[in-house]
Amino acid sequence: MSGIAGIIETQDVSYPLYYALHALQHRGQEAAGISTFDGEKAYLYKAPGQLSEVFSEDRLRTLPGFCGVAQVLYTEKASRGKNENIQPLNFSFQGHHLSVSVSASLINSESLRSEYEGKGHIFSTTSNAEIIAAIIAHELIGGASPRDAFVRTLHRLEGAYTGVATLDGILYAFRDPLGIKPLCFGKTERGYLVVSESVALDITGAELIRDVEAGELLIFTKEAFESVQFAKAEHKAHCIFEYVYTARPDSVIDGVLVYDARRRIGARLGKIPTEADLVSPVPDSGTAFATGYSAESGIPYIEGLLKNRYVGRTFIMPGQSKRENAVRMKLNPVRSHIKDKSVVLVDDSIVRGTTSLHIVDMVKEFGAKEIHMRIGSTPIIAPCYFGVDLPTREELIATNRSVEEIRETIHATTLEYISAEELVESVGIPAEDLCIACSCGEYPVDIPCEKCMKKKITLLD
Amino acid sequence: MSGIAGIIETQDVSYPLYYALHALQHRGQEAAGISTFDGEKAYLYKAPGQLSEVFSEDRLRTLPGFCGVAQVLYTEKASRGKNENIQPLNFSFQGHHLSVSVSASLINSESLRSEYEGKGHIFSTTSNAEIIAAIIAHELIGGASPRDAFVRTLHRLEGAYTGVATLDGILYAFRDPLGIKPLCFGKTERGYLVVSESVALDITGAELIRDVEAGELLIFTKEAFESVQFAKAEHKAHCIFEYVYTARPDSVIDGVLVYDARRRIGARLGKIPTEADLVSPVPDSGTAFATGYSAESGIPYIEGLLKNRYVGRTFIMPGQSKRENAVRMKLNPVRSHIKDKSVVLVDDSIVRGTTSLHIVDMVKEFGAKEIHMRIGSTPIIAPCYFGVDLPTREELIATNRSVEEIRETIHATTLEYISAEELVESVGIPAEDLCIACSCGEYPVDIPCEKCMKKKITLLD
Amino acid sequence: MSGIAGIIETQDVSYPLYYALHALQHRGQEAAGISTFDGEKAYLYKAPGQLSEVFSEDRLRTLPGFCGVAQVLYTEKASRGKNENIQPLNFSFQGHHLSVSVSASLINSESLRSEYEGKGHIFSTTSNAEIIAAIIAHELIGGASPRDAFVRTLHRLEGAYTGVATLDGILYAFRDPLGIKPLCFGKTERGYLVVSESVALDITGAELIRDVEAGELLIFTKEAFESVQFAKAEHKAHCIFEYVYTARPDSVIDGVLVYDARRRIGARLGKIPTEADLVSPVPDSGTAFATGYSAESGIPYIEGLLKNRYVGRTFIMPGQSKRENAVRMKLNPVRSHIKDKSVVLVDDSIVRGTTSLHIVDMVKEFGAKEIHMRIGSTPIIAPCYFGVDLPTREELIATNRSVEEIRETIHATTLEYISAEELVESVGIPAEDLCIACSCGEYPVDIPCEKCMKKKITLLD
Amino acid sequence: MSGIAGIIETQDVSYPLYYALHALQHRGQEAAGISTFDGEKAYLYKAPGQLSEVFSEDRLRTLPGFCGVAQVLYTEKASRGKNENIQPLNFSFQGHHLSVSVSASLINSESLRSEYEGKGHIFSTTSNAEIIAAIIAHELIGGASPRDAFVRTLHRLEGAYTGVATLDGILYAFRDPLGIKPLCFGKTERGYLVVSESVALDITGAELIRDVEAGELLIFTKEAFESVQFAKAEHKAHCIFEYVYTARPDSVIDGVLVYDARRRIGARLGKIPTEADLVSPVPDSGTAFATGYSAESGIPYIEGLLKNRYVGRTFIMPGQSKRENAVRMKLNPVRSHIKDKSVVLVDDSIVRGTTSLHIVDMVKEFGAKEIHMRIGSTPIIAPCYFGVDLPTREELIATNRSVEEIRETIHATTLEYISAEELVESVGIPAEDLCIACSCGEYPVDIPCEKCMKKKITLLD
Repeated sequence: MSGIAGIIETQDVSYPLYYALHALQHRGQEAAGISTFDGEKAYLYKAPGQLSEVFSEDRLRTLPGFCGVAQVLYTEKASRGKNENIQPLNFSFQGHHLSVSVSASLINSESLRSEYEGKGHIFSTTSNAEIIAAIIAHELIGGASPRDAFVRTLHRLEGAYTGVATLDGILYAFRDPLGIKPLCFGKTERGYLVVSESVALDITGAELIRDVEAGELLIFTKEAFESVQFAKAEHKAHCIFEYVYTARPDSVIDGVLVYDARRRIGARLGKIPTEADLVSPVPDSGTAFATGYSAESGIPYIEGLLKNRYVGRTFIMPGQSKRENAVRMKLNPVRSHIKDKSVVLVDDSIVRGTTSLHIVDMVKEFGAKEIHMRIGSTPIIAPCYFGVDLPTREELIATNRSVEEIRETIHATTLEYISAEELVESVGIPAEDLCIACSCGEYPVDIPCEKCMKKKITLLD
Repeated sequence: MSGIAGIIETQDVSYPLYYALHALQHRGQEAAGISTFDGEKAYLYKAPGQLSEVFSEDRLRTLPGFCGVAQVLYTEKASRGKNENIQPLNFSFQGHHLSVSVSASLINSESLRSEYEGKGHIFSTTSNAEIIAAIIAHELIGGASPRDAFVRTLHRLEGAYTGVATLDGILYAFRDPLGIKPLCFGKTERGYLVVSESVALDITGAELIRDVEAGELLIFTKEAFESVQFAKAEHKAHCIFEYVYTARPDSVIDGVLVYDARRRIGARLGKIPTEADLVSPVPDSGTAFATGYSAESGIPYIEGLLKNRYVGRTFIMPGQSKRENAVRMKLNPVRSHIKDKSVVLVDDSIVRGTTSLHIVDMVKEFGAKEIHMRIGSTPIIAPCYFGVDLPTREELIATNRSVEEIRETIHATTLEYISAEELVESVGIPAEDLCIACSCGEYPVDIPCEKCMKKKITLLD
Repeated sequence: MSGIAGIIETQDVSYPLYYALHALQHRGQEAAGISTFDGEKAYLYKAPGQLSEVFSEDRLRTLPGFCGVAQVLYTEKASRGKNENIQPLNFSFQGHHLSVSVSASLINSESLRSEYEGKGHIFSTTSNAEIIAAIIAHELIGGASPRDAFVRTLHRLEGAYTGVATLDGILYAFRDPLGIKPLCFGKTERGYLVVSESVALDITGAELIRDVEAGELLIFTKEAFESVQFAKAEHKAHCIFEYVYTARPDSVIDGVLVYDARRRIGARLGKIPTEADLVSPVPDSGTAFATGYSAESGIPYIEGLLKNRYVGRTFIMPGQSKRENAVRMKLNPVRSHIKDKSVVLVDDSIVRGTTSLHIVDMVKEFGAKEIHMRIGSTPIIAPCYFGVDLPTREELIATNRSVEEIRETIHATTLEYISAEELVESVGIPAEDLCIACSCGEYPVDIPCEKCMKKKITLLD
Repeated sequence: MSGIAGIIETQDVSYPLYYALHALQHRGQEAAGISTFDGEKAYLYKAPGQLSEVFSEDRLRTLPGFCGVAQVLYTEKASRGKNENIQPLNFSFQGHHLSVSVSASLINSESLRSEYEGKGHIFSTTSNAEIIAAIIAHELIGGASPRDAFVRTLHRLEGAYTGVATLDGILYAFRDPLGIKPLCFGKTERGYLVVSESVALDITGAELIRDVEAGELLIFTKEAFESVQFAKAEHKAHCIFEYVYTARPDSVIDGVLVYDARRRIGARLGKIPTEADLVSPVPDSGTAFATGYSAESGIPYIEGLLKNRYVGRTFIMPGQSKRENAVRMKLNPVRSHIKDKSVVLVDDSIVRGTTSLHIVDMVKEFGAKEIHMRIGSTPIIAPCYFGVDLPTREELIATNRSVEEIRETIHATTLEYISAEELVESVGIPAEDLCIACSCGEYPVDIPCEKCMKKKITLLD
């Protein structure tokens, strides 16, 4: 998982790129980078750390240029310390300047890597971004026009990806044929912006034009853009998890406002007959769900858990586990709201179950009589090969447990998940255009050898 | 404004003091300090900066001791750079070890200061904490028992204050006779905790015993506490602004859960007939109000503005003012919720009006048809001499403007404040026991010369 | 030990005060502070850490004012964490603004402290600076003129001290009647500077006027100064250790250039018949001694040990002790200079003997045939009560060992110290005007109860 | 210019690599990096900044592995901000793990770059290290053995270079056929170390085996090493500037202890008849020269300028230029040594002349009667294309000035350089085996088009 942005404008882009990353920070908080191009030279700065640690205003000033790409990254455990994988990646060859920022989980990364090693490229990172850049460059060197170089490259990629790139002062953006991950673009008076989520347009004062289509390549100058449909799939496979958890609620993805999807999911859950005194979100992710639940069920929306807005260092307190302590530092039950009450707690999902257990226990400790957990996703039973950092099947609480067993494990009075059908209906996109593999284990593309995929697919970028 | 905490326990207190400060961070983010006492020596560390910058785990380990006091401070402009004023303050005299942490706005600070200068104390800070410590020490040196020394000291103070102190291994806590500012205490199996707000008890796993009474001095050992009623006023003067803005919603202050007070205020506002498509809080402070508004009015609670959870550096974007930019970095309107809609926006208060103006303009820019501002406090027309950092009368938008004029200034379609009567009723504390001076200009204690008070009352601690 | 500076000028003094502290950094690297006064208000910033960590240019800009005092501090173990003791200390009373920076080891600090506690001052630090400030303030309040207040205060102090202070825009400087510690002053076109060592005048472009006399109080305005001889002792007691170790070689103290004193000491050592191939300093402290040794003995000056100019973090390497490692990180033997050679190593002093042992062993490991240690001080057999941080008698290697036993302990081939008479003669100040208590155990002032003095004398400031 | 190190051992190498870099810090202070390999995975961390800022002990612990390479880098202005060029560079291809750290100035970098672009490699840095890595990798992929891959690669490089690399758990080291830059190796009980200068062996407790020969490739396992002479030149071209300025005095380079070379140079300068009271180095670089000068001339070695050991931030003082101020912060003239004296000042070289001018002026200001500058190198009249960051011919003070004109420009009483013959003789290496191009403008390899070389040769690594 990561957040990407590309801008081409009549003025320097490092500031708006920084703003876009600020809006996309929830998609990656472990590293950040910005690359710009001023017509002659490419400038790059990237480092591990949160966005505000990596970039100061002084640093932004060292990145001149009218076009550029940027990225915030989440790093899988496996890639910790591999700082060479932080994007954007810059390349210069035969007078060309290429900067790429991609969020890509490729099925065929190994064979592409081998192929381009065979063609002479020596890889210095383990990221898919370098594979994609190598193909583009080889096509260009082979004589292809920039447009064709991109199209031919995209024809080679299998999997989930979105990307932005600048090549010699032109901005490119592309999204995989199934449209698994989100990408959209907008404009200001000064030029064009392509971003992972529409909230990054809002913050820069840009107007959303539309989503990048599945299988679409866009080519931007400051004044205009051209669309190339490089692939066409019968159906899309938009990631359901974006609507449930990943995306910011104020983003519009493939025509659906995430907040509204969550509100409708909450409303569906609210139809399950439940007697309770109040409905409370697990903040912040459960909020939109809970408002929908309350509206539908008539049970009053009252926050039973509140979040401390300050990020604290989490020291271990005597007699507490690290996770307990982290939960306690972030969430505070409102005693008088929950004491002797039947509480509906609405959360987005249950992955390992550990956090849910700590929350339920803490709410009980503050005196709740009954705790009715309501979950805005289906039980998660399969890992994701397309960028969501879910644990292995063994670690997923739902893989080998019935809902009743899960309920027991997390100490809840009752537990209800939304059904897959209701979930799809709530999102408002036809089931055949969604990827719900984490709920059902059926993937939109063939996963060649699932057992070894976790290793084969590089999820970093 | 500041947040204070004092703990006496069977084990080291630096960690729980840190946790308590973490929960109280909203009361002061510009400096932090912890002082501990191990039976022989006093340990102190304090510095400007946010809590998490000031204290690392290594630092906490250098502060041993079974009792201690701590503080997070907000610094008025006038005191910036006066690092000597950061609390706690430590004193050692005639074998005594005294550490004090107070949040005090004293009417008679100047005369007390002169008096104790006359008695031989040379002041090294401009804080009221040093005045209070000097009186305590003088009483002790004069032969008073510790208890009497505190009582006699408290008899001398006029104004609003809460304080915690350790003297030779005993913990003291006190609250002014009008109970203007909040202070409460609780216990664990290991001992006692006194804190500005009950949320700081929750985070440390302590159980709330009760509020410190107005005019009460409490004396704690690890095993027991004693209460001394050192003064009795006919009426209290609990600060209304704690319920409206200052305190965390999950705190219980003088028997009232802040969240519920806000919810009731919101419900009152919801009775004002308004036609609208949705009610949205201005996050985060407006949330509790808006849930009450929605429940009462039946207008659906839908967030029209969302908050970016990440704190960003705010660089000036071309063509934006600094404040505009700061608003844009923090708040994002949800276009599809507000486009062509009549929106009720609920906020806690309007002080200068600048932020409200930027919010209204931004929401309009995203397409709202009508914006109905609803405010959870009355118009603020008078400065506070008891610790709330309100600007001068000249800068307060409501001082010389009618509600209609304010509405026009902030570009809202309609604007409604709650009335003083409804506000008091919503909080649920009799009017005669509240201080609503900022709404009416009548102060619970005589302000000797209002014109010069801003200078005379040291608001820092 | 610490370094102090005071400046009064026609322009802002924070920059030259910073420069002065930079030149005095060898006198204290654990904390730094600057206080200024602009005619109306006093400004102060101080913090633990090295000078360059504590002050940035931005910070200096927040300290306006035409006069001020500053200090770099070394902290005794006993005072670590007592950040309240960092100087300057500021006081404001009855309209007066007093800032003091003193380096003081007082014999009668306890009784003075009690006395002024008795007079009503409540101490918030354990530093002598606060005692001195309290006396000054009490005298002023009692009606004394500023000049008399200082004189009466200085009459009360017994021990070693130097100090600078600003009181209401006038700069004061004083040195104890025995002149134990150094203090000198100079001028520029813009005003006057008082500093611990003359190097701090050089860096600011000031011209040395002279040393502050033992028992002298100086009072400075921008335009002129007045001298008050507040005490007169038959003899001085200038600290011999300043010439041997503490002061920078380029400082002139009480008329003697430290470098030259060291060179003459080295020359004396060079008269001891020794056959060797080269003479090398233990850098940096042994350099001046070794040049004198070489000139006298005719043995060539060739560096056998070189110093790494970069300060490194010292991590423990497998199989090394922390001190060994620290020695290795700093000093590197030059193999071809010492392999199979007889080497004279010249160092300033041997305190515990541990570092000398590591150096001798390391030089041997690099192949030296013989190592002749020559020491520029006498054996140190007694602790210092006047500010030099020597260990207890038990830890001093020379207390209960003959020179031969020390030689054996540090593995040297031969070992020679300079004699007390030669040392005194080399420094060039009459014996009766020097304090050589660390060499002989006889102190220039009565140490009331030596056993408990280490506790009684606060050495911090 | 940069410093490199490679280690293969029976235990983790990140600590000894750090120590080696600490000893080599004078060769590069703007960036640092360490790469390790544990038999399976490669680990890398590198960042801009001084060594001690880049690496903490925690960071070193994240770099496991029994072999690795490391580098400290100096960055030319042209490359500032090109953080992608910081070394080591890591590559992984067809199961191989390659890490390279080179210090290389190649004549044919452009053509090699083009050639390997033609062969399919897409460059992501502008560093020669990537060119070298690409050739190695291509040879390996083409079927060459690791040994042959290195040899064939080295056959392609024209220019000055030294390098270390790990390939699949074997350590390689190489030096150009002319041996322009230094590289040596040593061993401990645990394995082998290759480093830019022998001081980096001393600090890790390793024993110097010998210099890497010009044209030699060394291949190391933990237990043994193999030598491959891949090229043989009739003559060497060891950089004379290493002896004069670049290397640490305690390093032994190509059999010559740098300190001794400098001492002999100083002795030669001491033969020039000069009447003076003292000879003083310009610290630290002039020290060894000055000791030789004094021994030869009989003029006493007395430091007339002393260096402040603390690094300070250099703020501009009113009325001073930035460079003046920097000189004043670092160097302090010892007034009583130079007042009314004839002073010989010995320095290593004069490049632009600005610093010399400031030093001479400052020494005069402190009262020197005569200042005789003696320079341990010949006038520098030509730029270096092999790694020494000299300015252009226009900026070199000696290009178009006679010695007399230079003397006048820097305000010295007399000025003498060593002659080229004496310099060579003092170093003790035959003239035909030295590169003295900066003194004479004749380069040991054809510089194809000198005018454009500055651009063509990438000097960074």
